[in-house]
Amino acid sequence: MIGQDVIQIATQGRGTYDLTSEIQSIVRSSGVSLGLCNVFIRHTSASLMLCENADPAVMRDLETFMTRIAPDGDPANTHTAEGPDDMPAHIRSVLTQADLNLPIREGRCDLGTWQGVYLWEHRHAPHQRKVTVTVTG
Amino acid sequence: MIGQDVIQIATQGRGTYDLTSEIQSIVRSSGVSLGLCNVFIRHTSASLMLCENADPAVMRDLETFMTRIAPDGDPANTHTAEGPDDMPAHIRSVLTQADLNLPIREGRCDLGTWQGVYLWEHRHAPHQRKVTVTVTG
Amino acid sequence: MIGQDVIQIATQGRGTYDLTSEIQSIVRSSGVSLGLCNVFIRHTSASLMLCENADPAVMRDLETFMTRIAPDGDPANTHTAEGPDDMPAHIRSVLTQADLNLPIREGRCDLGTWQGVYLWEHRHAPHQRKVTVTVTG
Repeated sequence: MIGQDVIQIATQGRGTYDLTSEIQSIVRSSGVSLGLCNVFIRHTSASLMLCENADPAVMRDLETFMTRIAPDGDPANTHTAEGPDDMPAHIRSVLTQADLNLPIREGRCDLGTWQGVYLWEHRHAPHQRKVTVTVTG
Repeated sequence: MIGQDVIQIATQGRGTYDLTSEIQSIVRSSGVSLGLCNVFIRHTSASLMLCENADPAVMRDLETFMTRIAPDGDPANTHTAEGPDDMPAHIRSVLTQADLNLPIREGRCDLGTWQGVYLWEHRHAPHQRKVTVTVTG
Repeated sequence: MIGQDVIQIATQGRGTYDLTSEIQSIVRSSGVSLGLCNVFIRHTSASLMLCENADPAVMRDLETFMTRIAPDGDPANTHTAEGPDDMPAHIRSVLTQADLNLPIREGRCDLGTWQGVYLWEHRHAPHQRKVTVTVTG
């Protein structure tokens, strides 16, 4: 059995957006009890990650880390036509994930207690983002 | 056909732990000859990677690299309640993988000659880690 | 339905190689209209990435970024027997992907407009690289 849905996320600019409950809801609706859930983002300046879901400071520190290694307006960048945060957004995307593949067990993604699925918007401007969720079982 | 197993790993603290033979054994037991093997770690301060399996110096150099870009006790980190190595562990996890998806061919994960599957423990203290292996074919 | 193909790529040394059309062709030949496409590289000094496919400056800036954080000949590296670019190649591979998992919709990988699938050769010398493509649907 294979089913596919698309999640649309209107981001408010750089930051993380928790997709966990929406993904769990898609898996539940699919009726698959044992299988896999593929989550795929159709963009190259926003990405996906599994991350600690308890303390918001983790997200802030991740932003600080990325800003240090791939700063906006880095003079080393030559791809600047789309703004000082566009090439850093591509770098951040390459360093994280475009797809996550989560085991389904007893009808839900079998995440660890502290794991959440996040969309990470890397651009400062709000964007419309599309994430495809494919459930197999 | 879909089968699922859980591997439990008692880590001895920061370092890499070779899961290759245990994963190959699960694939062999599944009887799947053509398909995919999903390996998923249920944690956010340990991760998975495919890496060169011949020279232990590669693992040491990877530790050195991560220590340079995400040092323990980094004063930039604000998520410090769980210790000076916890936020670096989250960063290292985000930069590597929570899931690997390996093609199965002729009844085994069709890795390259020099590829091994490793759990990378990023915390200094020993931890109990769980890795879910889902075989599809 | 599961099908598997192997793509062989003769790289000309460090740089990116667009695999998108070859992968789309394998998916089309498979006859799968709804499913997933797993792309897996059997090496640890070359990797895969999804990246912006329009401006070649993006690839140049990605090289510059990787050269800055993992320079060839870095004196911190002890794994040097295979040359000054070998350990940096392992680091670059660990920071990017060995496998990509792309949703198939209406008979093709449903990538975003600006997404291309690239092999990233991290060694300076030309290499023969193998990429396994597994289509499920």
